[in-house]
Order: sequence, then structure tokens, then C-alpha cells
Amino acid sequence: MAAASPFDDFRDLVNLLPDPETAAVEAFWARDAQLTKIPGSLGRLEEIGAKLAAATGQIPPKVEKPLVAVFAANHGITAKGVSAFPSDVTKQMVANYAAGGAAINQICMVSDIGLRVFELALDMPTPDISETDAFDARDCAATMAFGMEALATGTDLLCLGEMGIGNTAVASAIYLALFGGSAEEWVGPGTGVQGEALKNKAAVVAKAVARIGGEKDPFEILRRLGGREIAAMVGAIIAARHQKVPVVVDGFVTSAAAAIVYAMNPRAIEHCLFAHVSAEPAHRRALAEMGATPLLDLGMRLGEGTGAAIAASIVRAAAATHAGMATFAEAGVSNKD
Amino acid sequence: MAAASPFDDFRDLVNLLPDPETAAVEAFWARDAQLTKIPGSLGRLEEIGAKLAAATGQIPPKVEKPLVAVFAANHGITAKGVSAFPSDVTKQMVANYAAGGAAINQICMVSDIGLRVFELALDMPTPDISETDAFDARDCAATMAFGMEALATGTDLLCLGEMGIGNTAVASAIYLALFGGSAEEWVGPGTGVQGEALKNKAAVVAKAVARIGGEKDPFEILRRLGGREIAAMVGAIIAARHQKVPVVVDGFVTSAAAAIVYAMNPRAIEHCLFAHVSAEPAHRRALAEMGATPLLDLGMRLGEGTGAAIAASIVRAAAATHAGMATFAEAGVSNKD
Repeated sequence: MAAASPFDDFRDLVNLLPDPETAAVEAFWARDAQLTKIPGSLGRLEEIGAKLAAATGQIPPKVEKPLVAVFAANHGITAKGVSAFPSDVTKQMVANYAAGGAAINQICMVSDIGLRVFELALDMPTPDISETDAFDARDCAATMAFGMEALATGTDLLCLGEMGIGNTAVASAIYLALFGGSAEEWVGPGTGVQGEALKNKAAVVAKAVARIGGEKDPFEILRRLGGREIAAMVGAIIAARHQKVPVVVDGFVTSAAAAIVYAMNPRAIEHCLFAHVSAEPAHRRALAEMGATPLLDLGMRLGEGTGAAIAASIVRAAAATHAGMATFAEAGVSNKD
Repeated sequence: MAAASPFDDFRDLVNLLPDPETAAVEAFWARDAQLTKIPGSLGRLEEIGAKLAAATGQIPPKVEKPLVAVFAANHGITAKGVSAFPSDVTKQMVANYAAGGAAINQICMVSDIGLRVFELALDMPTPDISETDAFDARDCAATMAFGMEALATGTDLLCLGEMGIGNTAVASAIYLALFGGSAEEWVGPGTGVQGEALKNKAAVVAKAVARIGGEKDPFEILRRLGGREIAAMVGAIIAARHQKVPVVVDGFVTSAAAAIVYAMNPRAIEHCLFAHVSAEPAHRRALAEMGATPLLDLGMRLGEGTGAAIAASIVRAAAATHAGMATFAEAGVSNKD
């Protein structure tokens, strides 16, 4: 018998999922067909509504306490010149969130969405993953468990975002390890590296993934390639699945957390909506690997949950239309001949 | 000298446009470059912000009183079986808007957007355009002038939408007359017609356009093909351009109003943002004819301004990020090396 691993509980959680909310989904479509609109004419809003029903089991699904949770971490891989900005910027941006000065603050404010920032040991960057593993299993599992705290606020729509200088390199390494291909295919400019610096970034990512020698276990890939914000978001996604809270996944880095969970069990991300396709070039492929169709394509690549926060307005509209619209009978509107 | 036409004032308005707000646009990009984000990382939000600056001349651009204006009208062409729903539904849906039971009510409510519905002589449908002209010039110009009333509320972001059983047929006829091609290319299911009924719809549209015999003057195309809601939206778009109010154009029918103005003078729709590409198949081509890139592609095809109302949240986020974000200097964040 194998020794107990810190990952055992998480392996159970991604495999022992709640039963499908079949009755709620059927009730959703039955009511949808009676609402004062042409069937299907709200397009993806109707699909989103059905997904909320499936994730929550609630009819009508409600989105009344949306929250953006931003996970911030630092990365030793920045020593290898993978980012155009210095690591100090992670902490400076966390201060900017606290002061209300970042993009995500403005979007949450005008959209009436809550915002919480989770700092993950900013003074203890995970080590350079081109040289050594990001975590031991205990630390990785503890960080995943910490991510579950995002649910503690009682949100009914969890929008996940991140901040961490160097983390597009980490996300690229995770995608490469999970989905194969070449480092060049998964690496992009991130904060703006190009030319020789971009080639270097790809080489560093290739070295990190070569170092783990074909490792295929998603949690081991997470442990060995990091980082803390990605591990925390993995935990948050898994917890949300069990607590029946729909999740809106932001961009390139946040999707890497979803990809880890997806690789463990595709059904474990059935409650996830993908907010947007980032301008980071490999994001489109990452979404395709998960069979995900993003809601938005606005050329954004900022992170911070900014894409997720914008998509949250669409999700809220989907819930509101289903819940609040009159039926043909209630409104006295003639239905199709 | 030609006799005065009721359209003369409108011809002047589409040709004598305000000067470009070059200084505001330059100021927008100068501030954008200082904000605590990677340049360009807000993607289309930045483009939208620049467009707001160009349209309004204000720095920072503000979106504080967004309004959805829904124009409702009836169409004699329904006698030819072009819609799956009876004409009575237009008035019934207007009652539904008043009672708060339609999709647009819910989206405006959760998005904090005002809503006004403009009824356009619902008991006097424009005549069957496959047989006769929709308006005389005086009536058409009066309806365009009425549409200008949408600006009277003091909105700073005008979202245009419509309701009118039969109006996708009218919009298809306008596109065909403006942009050429075949009726089949411009006609789609609308409320859900298919098979033989769809072939009939195309034949009716073809007959209407053949009747006007190659007419190329956009205002004459509007006058001869209608309908009232489209004429009113033409007036609203022109008025907004002069009053420096940005406009969000909804879907297939609303875009036909924009297309009339575009055909008069492409610069007269520079203040228009196109909310989404409708599931009505020819909308994609209509947008391409105007060189417009829609903000959303959500498979919606309801009208009522629903796509525009959802896009308004994106526009508001664009304005809020520009106005509210801290600069690198203000936040003490290190800029790129």
C-alpha cells in the first residue's frame, strides 16, 4: 500500500463529484421555452443559464454576490529574464489593488462585483522551476487548500484572476507538460517580452519541462512547475465544484489552473465558464484543449481577473433574464402560430 | 434649383459634421500609456475609450447615464407571411416592456441602464413595401426627427434597439438596396421562419427592392422601404453624432439604420460602437460592409437592444478604467525596465 500523500484528499475531491443536477437543467429549459422571446434568441445567455442550473441545482439560478478573487504570487523563474517587469511589481500591484487604483478595481466598482486579493507569500517566491521543483507536496497541497478560502465569502459567482510577474512562463510550462507540443507554441510575450528575450523565455520553459521528464500526473505537474497562485486557483476551482458555485475563469494564467483540474477529470470543471480568449497567443489553444468556448474576444491580456469581471456582467444578465422575464401566458403575448 | 425636400436638413446634418476631437484622442492615449497596466493590455477597452474621447471630446470620457432606447413599429409587409409571429405581438411586447417582463428590462435592471420605449404609431403600420413605398418624404423626415427625442433624456451613452414584427424583412431589403447581392444572401429566419416560408420571405424582399428600381440615395431607400423604427433610429444616430453622444448599435435591424447613415457619409457613424454580431446570418456581412468589428458574438438574435445593453457594460468598463486607474507614478509601481 502506498504511503498517504498530501494530494490524496484532492484526488478524492476531483473524482467524487456531486451528482449531475439533471432536474434543475430540465426545469431551466422548460421555463426558458415559455419566456417572452423566440426560443434560442438569447443565444449563449441561455447556455450560461443552463450551466448555472447544472452547477448550482437552483432554479432560477441566482447571481447576487459575484466576487473577483485575485491570487498574487512571486516566481523565482524571473531570475532567468522571462518578464519585462521586475518581481517587485507583484507587491506594488497588490498595494495598487488595496488603494483602488488598478483596472480590476474600476471594473468591479462599476459592475457591482466584490473584490478580494489573496497574497501568497510574496516574499517567498517559488524557486526557479528551470532548476528545481516549485513545491514539496505538503506546501503545494496547503496552497491548494488556502485557495478554497475564496469560497468563504459566500459568493454565488466566483471570478478567478491573478497577478504574478513571471507567471505566464509558469503557465506555459504547465500547458506544455499537460498537452505536449513545443515550448515555442506555448510561450508568448506576457508583459511584453519579444525578440531574443522571447526566445530565452521559451528556452527556460523548455528546460523546466524537460527537467520533470515526462511527468503526466497533473498534481505532480503543478507541484513541480508551480506557482502559488495557480495552485491556489486549482483549490478554489475544486472547492467551488463541490460547493456548487459557478466559476468564471479569466485568461492565460488562470486557465492553466483550470487545465490542471481538467486533466485530473474533465467533469471537475463543468461549473467553469471561460471569460475570454486572451491576446496571449497560446490561450486559444489552451481553451481548445479543454473544449472551452470563451465568452469574449476583446484582445485583453492584463490578468487581474479583468476579463472575468467583464464576463460576469454577461453571466448576471443570463441569470436575470431567466429569473425575471414574463412567460407568454403571464404577459398576454401571442406565441408563434 | 430643385424644390426644397423634407430631407434637406438631414442631408446637411450628415455632411456638416463636428470637427474631429483630435486633442481629446491624443490626451486619451497619453494618459493610457501612464496607467498601471501593460500598454495595450486592455485591448478593445482601450480602443473603446479612444472612441469615446473622439465622439465626446471629453477627457476622461464618462459613461454615467447609459440609456437603452427601444423603437417599436409595425409593418404592412407581415401580410405577406414574412414572420412566424402575428403583428399583434409588437404591441403586446411594448406592454411587456412597460410591465418590466421582457429580456431588455432584466438586463437594464441588473446593469443599471435606463430604458425608454418609443412607440411609433403601432396602429398605423407602414404599407406593404413589396407593393408601395413605406412613407412619403414628409412622414419619413418627421419620423427621423422624432427619433432625435432619444437624446432628450441627457444620456451619455445611447444604446439603440427595436421591436417590430416583420422588421428583419425590412432590414434585409434595405441592406440589399444599399449593398447589392441577392435577396437570399440578406434574408434569414428572423423570428424563426424556415423552409418554404424563408423562400417566400426572400421573394417578398426581392420584390420590394426590385420595385424601387436601383434607387441608390440612402434616404430614398429608407423612405421607400421603411420602417418607422429604422427611420427613427437613423434620426437618433445623426442627432447623437452632433450632440457628441456615443451610440451602441444593437443587432441586425438596428444596424440597418446605421447602414443608411453610413451610406450617406461613413464619418457620420464614427461615434457608433457595434454591440454584437447577431445570429441572423446576414448581420456579419452587414457589419463587414461598414467596416465594423462587433464587441460580442454571443449567438443572440432577440433585438430589443439586448445586445447593446450587454455591450454597454463593456463600454462603461472602458470609461471607468481610463478614468479611475492610477498611473505608475501615482501608485509607485515600477514601470518596464
